[in-house]
Amino acid sequence: MASEFALIAALRRRLPAASGEVLLGPGDDAALVAPPLGQGQVLSTDTLVAGRHFPPGLPPELLAWRALAVNLSDLAAMGATPGPYLVALTAPDLTEAWIEGFCDGLLGCTARYAPSAQLVGGNLARGPLQVSVTVTGWVPPGQALLRSGARPGDRLFVSGRVGQGLAARQALGETALQPLGLVNCPVAFQPYLMPAPRVALGLALRGQATAAIDISDGLAAELRHLAEASGVSLKLEADAIPVQGDRIAALQGGDDYELLFTLPAERSTPERLAALARAGGVALSEIGQCEIGPPALQGLPDLPREGWDHFAGEAAP
Amino acid sequence: MASEFALIAALRRRLPAASGEVLLGPGDDAALVAPPLGQGQVLSTDTLVAGRHFPPGLPPELLAWRALAVNLSDLAAMGATPGPYLVALTAPDLTEAWIEGFCDGLLGCTARYAPSAQLVGGNLARGPLQVSVTVTGWVPPGQALLRSGARPGDRLFVSGRVGQGLAARQALGETALQPLGLVNCPVAFQPYLMPAPRVALGLALRGQATAAIDISDGLAAELRHLAEASGVSLKLEADAIPVQGDRIAALQGGDDYELLFTLPAERSTPERLAALARAGGVALSEIGQCEIGPPALQGLPDLPREGWDHFAGEAAP
Repeated sequence: MASEFALIAALRRRLPAASGEVLLGPGDDAALVAPPLGQGQVLSTDTLVAGRHFPPGLPPELLAWRALAVNLSDLAAMGATPGPYLVALTAPDLTEAWIEGFCDGLLGCTARYAPSAQLVGGNLARGPLQVSVTVTGWVPPGQALLRSGARPGDRLFVSGRVGQGLAARQALGETALQPLGLVNCPVAFQPYLMPAPRVALGLALRGQATAAIDISDGLAAELRHLAEASGVSLKLEADAIPVQGDRIAALQGGDDYELLFTLPAERSTPERLAALARAGGVALSEIGQCEIGPPALQGLPDLPREGWDHFAGEAAP
Repeated sequence: MASEFALIAALRRRLPAASGEVLLGPGDDAALVAPPLGQGQVLSTDTLVAGRHFPPGLPPELLAWRALAVNLSDLAAMGATPGPYLVALTAPDLTEAWIEGFCDGLLGCTARYAPSAQLVGGNLARGPLQVSVTVTGWVPPGQALLRSGARPGDRLFVSGRVGQGLAARQALGETALQPLGLVNCPVAFQPYLMPAPRVALGLALRGQATAAIDISDGLAAELRHLAEASGVSLKLEADAIPVQGDRIAALQGGDDYELLFTLPAERSTPERLAALARAGGVALSEIGQCEIGPPALQGLPDLPREGWDHFAGEAAP
C-alpha cells in the first residue's frame, strides 16, 4: 500500500512542468492560473464510476484516457480551447505503477487531442474506484457554442457515426482487459475505451455553428435537448443519420462523443462543410433541419427508450 | 427512484439565477464564466467518501456544507475570493427531497462564508455515495498566498484552536444523525459537520502573509509541508499552540480548517494582529518563528504519527 504522498510524488514526476497560463501546478493548497486576457472560461465536470461507466478491471491508461476524453468532449461542444484540468480519483488501493499508467493515459489523450490542456490539481483518496475530472477551457467573448442558438431554417449536422460507443461496448463484452493498453487497444474497442473528443471540430465551428451539443447521452436524447433549448422543431431525415450497427439501438446508445450542431443554410455549402470536416478531422453528415414550431422531433423512428439516464439507465459493462 | 433529469430540475429550481461573472450556469454542455479582468484564478478539488470522510447517514444539508467548506478552506489558504464551483455527486439512490436538502447545505454555506461563490455545474450519477467539489477563486496578480513564501525571521501563526475537528468527530461518535440539520447541529459537532472555512481571514492576509496553508491534514503535517516548501526551519513554542482536548492528538488530528501562516516581524505588531483577527472573525495565536536551516520542526513533542494520510490513514467515523 503506497501512501498518498508517495502516489502524488509519482504523479508529479510524470507530469511536465507548469507552463503558459499555468503559474502553479499541483503541490500547494490550490493551483494558480492566469486566464488569457478577455477570454471566456468554460467549466465542466463528469464522473466515471467503476462497473457503471467502465469495467472495473480496466487498465489505468485506458481509464484515464476515457475519463479525460469524455470531459474534453464537453469542451468541444462549447467550442472551447482546452485549458487547466483537475482529477479527483478514489480507489480501494493504488500502487505507484498504477498511478504512472494513469498519467500515461492523461498525457496520451492530451498529446493527441488537447495539447493545451494541463493537469493542475486533483485529489487522491481511498474509496470505491471512480474518477471525476473537471475541465476548463477558453473561448473568445460571444463565440461559445450553446445548445440554445439554433434557429428555424438552420441545417442540422452530426459528426462521425452514431452507435460506435454502443458497438464498442458490445464488442468489448467479456474480453480480458489486462493486456489492453494505449498502443494495443483494438480499433473495435476504441470508441468506448479511447474515445476521440471532437476538440478540433468544436474550434472550427466557432463563429460558424448556431448551436452545438455532444451526443454522449445518445443522439435521440440530445436532439430533444437541442430542440428544447433552442425552441425549434427538428425535422430529421432518419436515413441520412450515419449509424454503426442496429439503427434503433444506435440512436439511443449513448457513449458517442460526436458533435450535433446547426449551421445557417448559407454556411452549409459543400465547400464550407468540406473545410469544416477537414479542420475537424471527421466526416460530417447533414441529418435534418430546424423548423418553426414547438420543440419536437419529426421523422425519427419510434424509440423504446430515449437516451442514457445516468441515474435510472442501465449499467455499462 | 427519481431520474437524473428530474433530480437536476429539482436542483436548478433551488438555485438562484446566474449573475455577475457567471454568464451561463448549469444546463448546457458546460458553464460559461467571464473571469474578472486581470485576476489570477485559483483551482482546487477535494472529495468526501462515505464512511471515510463523513458518516454514511449524514443528512444531505450537512454533507453538502462539509463538502463545500473543506474546498473553500483551500481557497482561503490561497487568499482567493470564491468564484464559480462544481459538484460531482454519486449516490446509490436519490430523491428530489434529498437533492433539495443538499442544495440547502450548499446555499447555507455560501451565504455565510462565500456569498460570491456560485454553483455553475456538476454531475449526478448512480454509484457509491461520495462528493467531489471543484472550487475556483480569484486573486490579484502576485497576491496568492503560497506555502513556499516563508522567510527566516518571519513569525508563525495559526487561527482558531487546533484539534477541534478531531474533538467534534469524537463527540459525534454514534449519535443518531437523522435529526441533525443546519439549524439544529450542536455546537460540539460543528467543527466536523459544519466547518467554518477561513475565507475572510485569507482575504485579510493578502499582501500581508508571506506564506499560508490550511491545516486540514493536521497541524504537525502541515507545519512540515510549509517548512519544506519554504526551505526554512520552524522553531515552535508548543505551549503557545491553542488546542482542544489532548495536545498530542490535536496536533495530528486533521479535519481542522484553520489557517497556518507567516508574517514578517514588522507586520506582527499587536495592532496589526488585532486588525487581522477582527477582519478574519477568528482568534490568532503566534506559535513560533522561521529560522535559517534545512526544513525541520523544532520544539514539537514527539508524535506517534504525523498527519492525516488520505490513503494510508485510518477512516473517519
